[in-house]
Amino acid sequence: MNIIKNPVAATLKRTIEQGTQEQLLAVVNIIADVRRKGDEALFSLTEKFDAVKLNQLRVTEEEITTAYNELGADMLEIIREAARNIKDYHARQKRESWITTDENGTILGQKITPLDSVGVYVPGGLAAYPSSVLMNVIPALVAGVKRIVMVSPPQKDGKLPAGVVVAASELGVQEMYKVGGAQAIAALAYGTESIEKVDKIVGPGNIYVALAKREVFGTVAIDMIAGPSEIVVLADETARPEEVAADLLSQAEHDERASSVLVTSSISLANEVKAEVFKQLETLPRKEIASKSIENYGAIYITDTLNEAVELVNELAPEHLEIITEDPMALVGKIRHAGAIFLGRYSSEPIGDYFAGPNHVLPTNGTARFSSPLNVDEFTKKSSIISYSKQAMLENGHKVAAFARLEGLEAHARAVEYRLEETK
Amino acid sequence: MNIIKNPVAATLKRTIEQGTQEQLLAVVNIIADVRRKGDEALFSLTEKFDAVKLNQLRVTEEEITTAYNELGADMLEIIREAARNIKDYHARQKRESWITTDENGTILGQKITPLDSVGVYVPGGLAAYPSSVLMNVIPALVAGVKRIVMVSPPQKDGKLPAGVVVAASELGVQEMYKVGGAQAIAALAYGTESIEKVDKIVGPGNIYVALAKREVFGTVAIDMIAGPSEIVVLADETARPEEVAADLLSQAEHDERASSVLVTSSISLANEVKAEVFKQLETLPRKEIASKSIENYGAIYITDTLNEAVELVNELAPEHLEIITEDPMALVGKIRHAGAIFLGRYSSEPIGDYFAGPNHVLPTNGTARFSSPLNVDEFTKKSSIISYSKQAMLENGHKVAAFARLEGLEAHARAVEYRLEETK
Repeated sequence: MNIIKNPVAATLKRTIEQGTQEQLLAVVNIIADVRRKGDEALFSLTEKFDAVKLNQLRVTEEEITTAYNELGADMLEIIREAARNIKDYHARQKRESWITTDENGTILGQKITPLDSVGVYVPGGLAAYPSSVLMNVIPALVAGVKRIVMVSPPQKDGKLPAGVVVAASELGVQEMYKVGGAQAIAALAYGTESIEKVDKIVGPGNIYVALAKREVFGTVAIDMIAGPSEIVVLADETARPEEVAADLLSQAEHDERASSVLVTSSISLANEVKAEVFKQLETLPRKEIASKSIENYGAIYITDTLNEAVELVNELAPEHLEIITEDPMALVGKIRHAGAIFLGRYSSEPIGDYFAGPNHVLPTNGTARFSSPLNVDEFTKKSSIISYSKQAMLENGHKVAAFARLEGLEAHARAVEYRLEETK
Repeated sequence: MNIIKNPVAATLKRTIEQGTQEQLLAVVNIIADVRRKGDEALFSLTEKFDAVKLNQLRVTEEEITTAYNELGADMLEIIREAARNIKDYHARQKRESWITTDENGTILGQKITPLDSVGVYVPGGLAAYPSSVLMNVIPALVAGVKRIVMVSPPQKDGKLPAGVVVAASELGVQEMYKVGGAQAIAALAYGTESIEKVDKIVGPGNIYVALAKREVFGTVAIDMIAGPSEIVVLADETARPEEVAADLLSQAEHDERASSVLVTSSISLANEVKAEVFKQLETLPRKEIASKSIENYGAIYITDTLNEAVELVNELAPEHLEIITEDPMALVGKIRHAGAIFLGRYSSEPIGDYFAGPNHVLPTNGTARFSSPLNVDEFTKKSSIISYSKQAMLENGHKVAAFARLEGLEAHARAVEYRLEETK
C-alpha cells in the first residue's frame, strides 16, 4: 500500500476477469448440454460441480419452513427491515407512463411496461448472500415484473442457505431452483422441463457464471458483468484513521483483486491510516485475502488541496466513494463519477451493502463514468406512443414528406401523402 | 408475401448481421492503426475508403455557411420544427436528482449526472441522414452532456451533406469531423490529435461501424447495435388497404432485410393489402430493395379475433407497431412489447421517423421485450447517496453488523462497530 504524493494522474489498479480459453470452452459445452438435454443435464452437472445428487430442482415448501426455523427470529427481523428500506428507496425510482396532448389532436406518450420475467442468480458455494437476493429481486418487484425466478447452487446438504431461501420467500419469490454455475444461466436463457425461460438475467457469480451470461446475451438481456469491488475514501484531517482503515479493509476482504484507495489532503491521516490498516489486518478472519488485496490494489494518494483530491476521485470513477471531510455534502455537486456516495463518518460503506436502501449492485471498473447502480428502470422498458389526428396530419404531412425526400426515401413520403390525398 | 391463417406461433423473420471473419479482421486492424498513428491513419483510411484526400478533419465555419445556403430556407424551417418537437418530447424524459430525509437524520438520494462527452456517428455514403443527427444529438443535449461530437464520412467532394451539417449546427454541435467507418469509431474511443476521446458512442452505421462499436465496447459505452428495420401493422376491417400497403412499403424500402408484417382479423383486408403492396411497388424508386424485402421478410397473418391478433403482436415484439383499428387507444394497454406504437390511420410511421418528437432509434430483433427507444436516461447515469447520522448509526449499526456476519464478512461488521464503539 504505497503512499503517493501529488499523482499526475491516478488510476485504480483494476483487473477485468476475461476467463481463459479453457473456461470459455467449458461454458459453451455446458450451455449446449443444457439446451440439448434440459433437466437431465442440470441434474448431472449439479452432481459434477456441486457434489450433490438431487431429484428435484425446485425448493419445496418444507425446505422453506426449515429455513425459517434455522435462520431464527432476530435475523428474520433484520432482513425484513432491510427489505423495507430497499423497497422504500426503489419505489422512488419507479416511473409512470405519461402522455401529452395538443390542441390539434396530437397525442404523444411514453408507456412504461415491466419485463415479463426475470431470473436472479444468487451466488453460493462457501458463503450465503441473502443481501444479493434483496438487492436483485426488489427492483424487479417494484418494477412490476410478474415472474421472478431465483437460482442458486445447492450446498453439500442439497439445500440452499437458510438466509437466501428466507429472503426470497419474504419477497414472494415463487420459483426457487437449486442450480448454479453456467448451467443455471443456460436454463434461464433457454428453458428446461422444470425451468421456463426468462427475458433478463441479473445477479453476480463466479467466472463461469459471468462467461455464461456473456454467451447468452442477445437471447436474453443481462445486467452488467461486475468486476472486483472498489472503494475510494476521500478524507481530510477530520477523519478518524481507525474508521477509514476499517472501511478500506471491508472492501479488501471481498476479493484478492478488490481495490481500496484513500485520497486525502492530509499527510498525517495518510500515515495513520496506513499504520491502522496493517494493525487491523492482523485479527481479520479473511486476513489472507485482504492482505493480498491491500498489497496489490491498495493505495494512498495525497494531494495539496481538497479540490485536487476531488478531481482525482473523478478520474478514478469508483464503485463506492466515502467522503469523510468536515462538510461532505458540500462536495457532492463536484463528484461527477461514482456508483454510490457515502457521506460522513457514520455512513460506513457496509451500511449500503445491507441496509440503508440504495442498491449494492454498482458499476465497477471505471464504468461509473457512464453506468448506474442496478435500479427499477432496468426491469422495465419504454414504448413511444404517437397518435396524429386528421388535423395534425393535414398541418404537418407535407413537412414529413419533404424531410423523407431529403433523405431519398420516396415510399416514406408517399405513405404520408396517401393520407393527405384521401383527406382532400 | 404469404398470407397465413391462424398461425400457432408467429415470429418476424429476422436477420442478425454478425459480419464475416474477414470484416472483423479488417476492423481490428483499422482500430489498431488509428491507435498507433492517430490522425495520420484517419487521413489515409479516408482516402482509401471514401476516395477523398482531406487535409483537415474538422468541418469549418465556411463549410457550415455553404451548407445553410445549399439546404435552403424551407427545409431549414422543417428541420427546426422537427428539432423543437423532438426537444419537447425528450425534455419530458429528463429526471431530477432527489433526496429523502428521515427524522433520525438519514439522508438517501439519487444524483443524476450527465455523461461528460458523447460521440454521435451519422452514416453517410450515398444518402444523407439529418434525422439521425436530430434523434441522436437531442437526447444527449437534453441530458446536459457538455461535449457532443459528430462524425460522418465525407462525400466525394470532401464535404458532409448539407442537411447533416445544418442539423448539427442548429443543435449547437461544436465539433463535427469528416471521418466515417471503423476509423471514426476508433478515434472516438481512443482519441487522436484532432479528436479527443468520448465516454459513449451512439448512432447507426454499416457492418464495419457495428463491428467497431462492439470492439470498443467496454473502453467506452455504446448504444444498441440495431438490426434491419421492422414494422407490424395491426389492423381491422376499418383500415384502408392503400394506406396499410404504403406503410409496409415505407419499411421495406429501407433494406432488403427489413421486415413488414400485417396482422389482421379481416380476410378481405389481408387480400386487398397484398394486392396494393404489389401495385404500389411498381412505381417506387427503391423498387428493387423493397421487392426483396417484401418477398423474403414480408408476411400477412390472419387471426380469428382482434385479441388473438394482439397476442401475436406481443409475440413479434416489433420495432414499429401501427394500430389501425376502430378504437386503437383501447388496445394500447394490451401491447406489452413494441418499440414505438402508432395509433390510427393518420399516424403513419414516417411521422415518427422525422417529425413527431419521440425517438426513431428503436429496439429491433425482438429486443423490444426488454429494451427501450433511445432516450435521455442513456446519456446520464445515477449515483446513490447515503448519509447516516450518529443517531441513525446507533439505531441500526448492530443490525448491519449482524447481517454482515451472516454472510461471513467480519471486516464489514467491524467497520460499523468502530463507529458504535467510539460513540459509546
